[in-house]
Amino acid sequence: MPLLPSDLISFPKTARSTVLEGGGETNCSCSPDQSGKLWGGRFVGAVDPIMEKFNASIAYDRHLWEVDVQGSKAYSRGLEKAGLLTKAEMDQILHGLDKVAEEWAQGTFKLSPNDEDIHTANERRLKVVTDLRLWMRQTCSTLSGLLWELIRTMVDRAEAERDILFLGYIHLQRAQPIHWSHWILRGGSWATWLGERRPLPVLQPSPTSSHPPELNFGAITVNSMDATSEWDLLAEFLFWASLCMTHLSRMAEDLILYCTKEFSFVQLSDAYSTGSSLMPQKKNPDSLELIRSKAGRVFGRCAGLLMTLKGLPSTYNKDLQEDKEAVFEVSDTMSAVLQVATGVISTLQARHPPASPPLGPRHWGGHTGRVALGGDAIPPGPRGLRESRVHGRDQGGRPQPAVTAGASDHQVRPIPFPMLPPRNPLFSGDVSCVWDYGHSVEQYGALGGTACSSVDWQIRQVRALLQAQQA
Amino acid sequence: MPLLPSDLISFPKTARSTVLEGGGETNCSCSPDQSGKLWGGRFVGAVDPIMEKFNASIAYDRHLWEVDVQGSKAYSRGLEKAGLLTKAEMDQILHGLDKVAEEWAQGTFKLSPNDEDIHTANERRLKVVTDLRLWMRQTCSTLSGLLWELIRTMVDRAEAERDILFLGYIHLQRAQPIHWSHWILRGGSWATWLGERRPLPVLQPSPTSSHPPELNFGAITVNSMDATSEWDLLAEFLFWASLCMTHLSRMAEDLILYCTKEFSFVQLSDAYSTGSSLMPQKKNPDSLELIRSKAGRVFGRCAGLLMTLKGLPSTYNKDLQEDKEAVFEVSDTMSAVLQVATGVISTLQARHPPASPPLGPRHWGGHTGRVALGGDAIPPGPRGLRESRVHGRDQGGRPQPAVTAGASDHQVRPIPFPMLPPRNPLFSGDVSCVWDYGHSVEQYGALGGTACSSVDWQIRQVRALLQAQQA
Amino acid sequence: MPLLPSDLISFPKTARSTVLEGGGETNCSCSPDQSGKLWGGRFVGAVDPIMEKFNASIAYDRHLWEVDVQGSKAYSRGLEKAGLLTKAEMDQILHGLDKVAEEWAQGTFKLSPNDEDIHTANERRLKVVTDLRLWMRQTCSTLSGLLWELIRTMVDRAEAERDILFLGYIHLQRAQPIHWSHWILRGGSWATWLGERRPLPVLQPSPTSSHPPELNFGAITVNSMDATSEWDLLAEFLFWASLCMTHLSRMAEDLILYCTKEFSFVQLSDAYSTGSSLMPQKKNPDSLELIRSKAGRVFGRCAGLLMTLKGLPSTYNKDLQEDKEAVFEVSDTMSAVLQVATGVISTLQARHPPASPPLGPRHWGGHTGRVALGGDAIPPGPRGLRESRVHGRDQGGRPQPAVTAGASDHQVRPIPFPMLPPRNPLFSGDVSCVWDYGHSVEQYGALGGTACSSVDWQIRQVRALLQAQQA
Amino acid sequence: MPLLPSDLISFPKTARSTVLEGGGETNCSCSPDQSGKLWGGRFVGAVDPIMEKFNASIAYDRHLWEVDVQGSKAYSRGLEKAGLLTKAEMDQILHGLDKVAEEWAQGTFKLSPNDEDIHTANERRLKVVTDLRLWMRQTCSTLSGLLWELIRTMVDRAEAERDILFLGYIHLQRAQPIHWSHWILRGGSWATWLGERRPLPVLQPSPTSSHPPELNFGAITVNSMDATSEWDLLAEFLFWASLCMTHLSRMAEDLILYCTKEFSFVQLSDAYSTGSSLMPQKKNPDSLELIRSKAGRVFGRCAGLLMTLKGLPSTYNKDLQEDKEAVFEVSDTMSAVLQVATGVISTLQARHPPASPPLGPRHWGGHTGRVALGGDAIPPGPRGLRESRVHGRDQGGRPQPAVTAGASDHQVRPIPFPMLPPRNPLFSGDVSCVWDYGHSVEQYGALGGTACSSVDWQIRQVRALLQAQQA
Repeated sequence: MPLLPSDLISFPKTARSTVLEGGGETNCSCSPDQSGKLWGGRFVGAVDPIMEKFNASIAYDRHLWEVDVQGSKAYSRGLEKAGLLTKAEMDQILHGLDKVAEEWAQGTFKLSPNDEDIHTANERRLKVVTDLRLWMRQTCSTLSGLLWELIRTMVDRAEAERDILFLGYIHLQRAQPIHWSHWILRGGSWATWLGERRPLPVLQPSPTSSHPPELNFGAITVNSMDATSEWDLLAEFLFWASLCMTHLSRMAEDLILYCTKEFSFVQLSDAYSTGSSLMPQKKNPDSLELIRSKAGRVFGRCAGLLMTLKGLPSTYNKDLQEDKEAVFEVSDTMSAVLQVATGVISTLQARHPPASPPLGPRHWGGHTGRVALGGDAIPPGPRGLRESRVHGRDQGGRPQPAVTAGASDHQVRPIPFPMLPPRNPLFSGDVSCVWDYGHSVEQYGALGGTACSSVDWQIRQVRALLQAQQA
Repeated sequence: MPLLPSDLISFPKTARSTVLEGGGETNCSCSPDQSGKLWGGRFVGAVDPIMEKFNASIAYDRHLWEVDVQGSKAYSRGLEKAGLLTKAEMDQILHGLDKVAEEWAQGTFKLSPNDEDIHTANERRLKVVTDLRLWMRQTCSTLSGLLWELIRTMVDRAEAERDILFLGYIHLQRAQPIHWSHWILRGGSWATWLGERRPLPVLQPSPTSSHPPELNFGAITVNSMDATSEWDLLAEFLFWASLCMTHLSRMAEDLILYCTKEFSFVQLSDAYSTGSSLMPQKKNPDSLELIRSKAGRVFGRCAGLLMTLKGLPSTYNKDLQEDKEAVFEVSDTMSAVLQVATGVISTLQARHPPASPPLGPRHWGGHTGRVALGGDAIPPGPRGLRESRVHGRDQGGRPQPAVTAGASDHQVRPIPFPMLPPRNPLFSGDVSCVWDYGHSVEQYGALGGTACSSVDWQIRQVRALLQAQQA
Repeated sequence: MPLLPSDLISFPKTARSTVLEGGGETNCSCSPDQSGKLWGGRFVGAVDPIMEKFNASIAYDRHLWEVDVQGSKAYSRGLEKAGLLTKAEMDQILHGLDKVAEEWAQGTFKLSPNDEDIHTANERRLKVVTDLRLWMRQTCSTLSGLLWELIRTMVDRAEAERDILFLGYIHLQRAQPIHWSHWILRGGSWATWLGERRPLPVLQPSPTSSHPPELNFGAITVNSMDATSEWDLLAEFLFWASLCMTHLSRMAEDLILYCTKEFSFVQLSDAYSTGSSLMPQKKNPDSLELIRSKAGRVFGRCAGLLMTLKGLPSTYNKDLQEDKEAVFEVSDTMSAVLQVATGVISTLQARHPPASPPLGPRHWGGHTGRVALGGDAIPPGPRGLRESRVHGRDQGGRPQPAVTAGASDHQVRPIPFPMLPPRNPLFSGDVSCVWDYGHSVEQYGALGGTACSSVDWQIRQVRALLQAQQA
Repeated sequence: MPLLPSDLISFPKTARSTVLEGGGETNCSCSPDQSGKLWGGRFVGAVDPIMEKFNASIAYDRHLWEVDVQGSKAYSRGLEKAGLLTKAEMDQILHGLDKVAEEWAQGTFKLSPNDEDIHTANERRLKVVTDLRLWMRQTCSTLSGLLWELIRTMVDRAEAERDILFLGYIHLQRAQPIHWSHWILRGGSWATWLGERRPLPVLQPSPTSSHPPELNFGAITVNSMDATSEWDLLAEFLFWASLCMTHLSRMAEDLILYCTKEFSFVQLSDAYSTGSSLMPQKKNPDSLELIRSKAGRVFGRCAGLLMTLKGLPSTYNKDLQEDKEAVFEVSDTMSAVLQVATGVISTLQARHPPASPPLGPRHWGGHTGRVALGGDAIPPGPRGLRESRVHGRDQGGRPQPAVTAGASDHQVRPIPFPMLPPRNPLFSGDVSCVWDYGHSVEQYGALGGTACSSVDWQIRQVRALLQAQQA
């Protein structure tokens, strides 16, 4: 069987004709023509420029210059403390690093072609990992701060507007009256989640033992093969962001509904909506729709990283380079989303009483906060009626549950207005409170309930978490 | 005030033509024929059996009977402590619950058609949430235990087989000799991750304030609208599982490679592989391939839940029912994967010396643990050579770096066997250690390094975590 | 040439300490105790039962019995045609297969422990692939049929209820009046998508050349290494299902909104909703919420399969076993969703006129289909006004655009009712049509527009697709 | 209950004090202080710059200038044909558009602040949709071309190097000898998939009826509410790309393995690998690792879009803006991946005979293409032996299956070399071919088999598809 010529195609370097496998045999498969072009590929030469670009992470590494300088300075201080640098040497290094930082900040820093030679690939990678950790620490701190700011805004509103009544929904069906503050305090749960249960991924173990204590990583990595478990940190960050964004998408969905003509509970500020010259009365909740949409993008990045990680061999593989762009983009997205969400919450208007427009004026008992039990069946009615053990009476004077039809036809039997208390002596006087939203909402005072006392307790809880976080 | 007709909503089929809204007009959209069939749908009647099945979660709720009984018993004890039940009443309830548990366990429990009536939908849901929390607590405890068992198995092997040499890879290219224990101690990083950084999601806040302290949830939920943040817990669990499975998929990938004829580093036990009657010499690593594959399934469940949660309105929506099947399946999958992984690790054989087959016998210096610097270029050679500042000499006796060709052609120039020390006086005597794996691996003794001392330190660290977890 | 010991690979447990590689040394890594237990794993013995269960696909393969029998019968007929079986032999085989099918159908078929031996692993796998293709062909046909049935139901309603007016939304803000049929004909786009652009994945290439023509696969697979591209087919099916489910989730979202008290455009049949004993007036759209939720589950399966496929080595790996459970579950889910969706569509009621309740009675001109331009700014007004170049006049008689405030404050200035035509001579007589929904909706008659003619055209298009599909 | 002041905060425009809801009530919730700052949000003023940036799609819309000009020119020609423009007017417009294109190309085009006013939001969106379709058509054409180029390169190699033998793997265990061309022709399956089964998403229905025929969209969209089904097209494109990338990730995985020292089947060109100054003999397959990794990124974008689409209300919502960045990024990624893959394939070297290094020289029968049945058990041996019904004889001359141990210990019993034919008369002469790779690979000549004839047939098939595509 004729073997192929020994010259390794596309390896014009003469040194490449060296035997690849011991024993003097030349088993190369390829037979290039003179142009060195092998199999019709477009590329001829030593370096494929597309590959070069494909391979380069410098575009993303640039993001890291600030923390790189910061890390290097801390490292120098550590070396000085350990007696490995004199004070003078350290000062010189610190000064040089400040100058580098200045150049980066002013855009005048020039990457030299020799940069690649300064560090070995391995050292560069570890450096990048360290830089990324520092960047992550800064980013997580920034994003946490923005989330706490959103929470603070929500609590401020909750406290200031506690008197506004609102409707709570289950299955998007009207369930029972709540305070508007109750809705907005959902942010309080995020505070619990953020403050107690799920802080941002902690940046503890460092990739090598050589980090100076000044960098303040919690512990050293136990296993050097698993320095790549750095990517756990990134994956956890991406999932943390995904879960946050999912919460925000749900908040946005609520507000988009409440902004519709049909609900009309809230009105977005112009700063966070857009109009249409064709339909000037429309006010599109673009900001909320974008917030809602970003959950997909952020989770897509998380899904992408996990899929990239799946089944990778141990230690470093170039696949892992996919990480940085994902976390940079997610960080930017989340930063924008949190700021816009804070802007939306701080400027939207909640209408009072929120439930009135859909009920229509004919359904109102004539004074704020008291409604007749109309066909649209505000829930406090029947539940209140039953729990108050209040019964109407039929024409013959026989006691009759106000909600007779409930079980059979899912319909609250409407009580003709003239029969309603206080006009109807068949009802005891205090039953009127059943149709009073303000009274109804106060019926449920347990922790987590709808009453003012519960809302106040929630406000105190979240304020305590806010204070603890600032300390 | 004209109210709407009372028989509106449940509309027995014949009443469908009744006016739906205002003013005596009959604007209903539907004009069913006598059969009650409206628009050609296959379904006629009050309840669509497919919908009933679609809607039912009882098949999954069954999984919860054990924790349901457990929760109910704790609740009863709480009520007794609070003086709301007498001791006798409590005992009676506890006895009854034991009987219920027995029936479930024996498969004799009968669901009554009235079960639906006992609890309101809302109460049932809260109950399910509580049951799910309890189930999660049990499950997380079980899975943690299985993961710790895997880790313990890995540490045991690492300790017992510390003398076996192995190869470390970067980019799946041979990098440097390591201890086999070094590879297997990757499980140690999981221990750090599990024990310090990322415990399983903690089951703290409870959905309502009414949980008896005996159930030992950490804190009450701040906001009742956000009791649905229960789903955070489930999402976090699914992601935790996804990340674990991703790690295991990478371990499985390594072992699948090491099981190939080409690597031949390890050999799977028959208990965890399958053969082929057609090709009897083959031993397929089915167990490892399944472990690797499950990362996709588990993460798919996580992706599914987040997509379901995205953009949902506040509070409860039936969409949330999607959660349970996901966590039940993921729990089952993970339980099996962890047990199989433990079985694989506890029975596989590591070959010693692992690097020998690919090198080929001619490359061996003649005694275990010492290799010549062959064309296949085991890294300790050049790195060691350079770091030892050892040089060979050319035929004319001029000093010559042993790795002359390194920079230009990425190829270690093979040194003919007769020239190798100690046979070649041109090399100083101690250079022989450069080709000695055992010596090479000991060169890097820093924490996380390849030396025995580093491996021992890692073992101690993980043992400490294991002990802390048992305490 | 010294060969390796023959008892190497299956190593009865006692032989585990035998040398694994070369030279008479005993370098085995493992030193089991007498129990054969190696490293503390729970498993002792030749077969780990958990592994056995983990490995088994028989639970899923069972789903395939019907198509397996069908495939085997076709294969036998092909062999007879090719002269490889006599007619009598073929009849005997067909008879036997019918009996097998009968046993499966009656649940009396018994799997023998020898089943594993009948086929080699490879042949089994190919067989499974073929069975899966046949199953896919049946499933795709069934699901297509269910989707067409849903489309037919939608078109039937669209045709029968063409006179009902509805509101079109953009950004969930009221945009312009449309026919209810226009909304429901969205199903028509699915028909285009299904019928013309994206039929279900076609089952063309077969895994081997040995398929009898009777099975009617389109072409043979070009490359045997790529018979595993079967998984393309499954992935495409899962994505097709995901995209369908995403469409259905959007339809469900619309209907859930339209079912709210606030929108009140449609009312779900009791058969597809649930009530609450606590809040009897509530009617929860469980069916729609479940439809919406399933998009997550189905896409999760698609994501899981792609993640499992990522980076797999060529040809068959056990990882690929993950496929079947995914497609079986997705098929079941989609079948239920499509049937429930058809049930929902065929029984829900559309209210007429849908836009009236949120507008409130005072906004109505007094007769159906004509509205005054109220503060809530039904879009046809301003757009119609401008496009009709109709202007009102102010109190001083100066011409004044009816929508003066439009550009500056996104608010249509409400025109006091007494000023409205025809009561106000300042408006030309025909301007009244501007407030007439029925007129407004007819203004846009282009293909895809809102007018009756456009709706009719759509109905004809979809009917044509339905007929083409039945032929 | 005190109502809040009527001034709508953050609506400084005086026109904003108009009643929001009919009836003279002023129910605004907000009480701004003088600064206009409401609830602690950082933003004060009419437009939040972060929101503006968040909202802007112009950065992405820029990508579309070329197709926008193209679309506008086609539109103008259509108007002229329809008699709506004179020839002179059309020429003037076309000239102007050419100038615009020139400015964009040279980077001198200036966006005017009035651009926003030229088109209504709705028209802009439709325009963008049309532009996106055109861009998609160009992109799909480009990517298809790049994929065909990769396929052509693979077929060229397959044809030129058909004599190189290779090993086929199942479960990553050696299965049977194949031609190297057989492996590389996997690209042929992609050709089938691309050319016959799954062309890139066809760009048929256009969003409105007003597209000039020149743009050559296949059909008009049936339903205007479903013009947003444009996103189907994008989702399908993203999934198509994901599936392609998954295939490429599997090809990359194979090649990464074949590049290892252990497999040593192929060698990457320097142009597509990187070295390490620390370990010069290493050649890292960065290009392949990046190709493998990108499957995650691309699928993440697909997952993100589907999650964004899930549960969106009908018609346009701003959420849909998420689409463009995804398709732009995926297009760029795929373009780079396909070009790099083509470069890799066109320059890598396949070693001949590939199977020799792992077998080791002692296993070779002494001439190329013939191997003894060694302990590492190349499969053609046993399979060939059995299929040839060839038996050895034991020492006593009794017939003995050559693979006696197969069923019991998964080990081919090694036949001592001296016993091998032709040296051993106990074997018939022609059995020697069993150990001959070249003979073994030719045994399976069915379509899709391993023989040359099968490979040639595959080459012809793919060539035919290539020609059909060029026509």
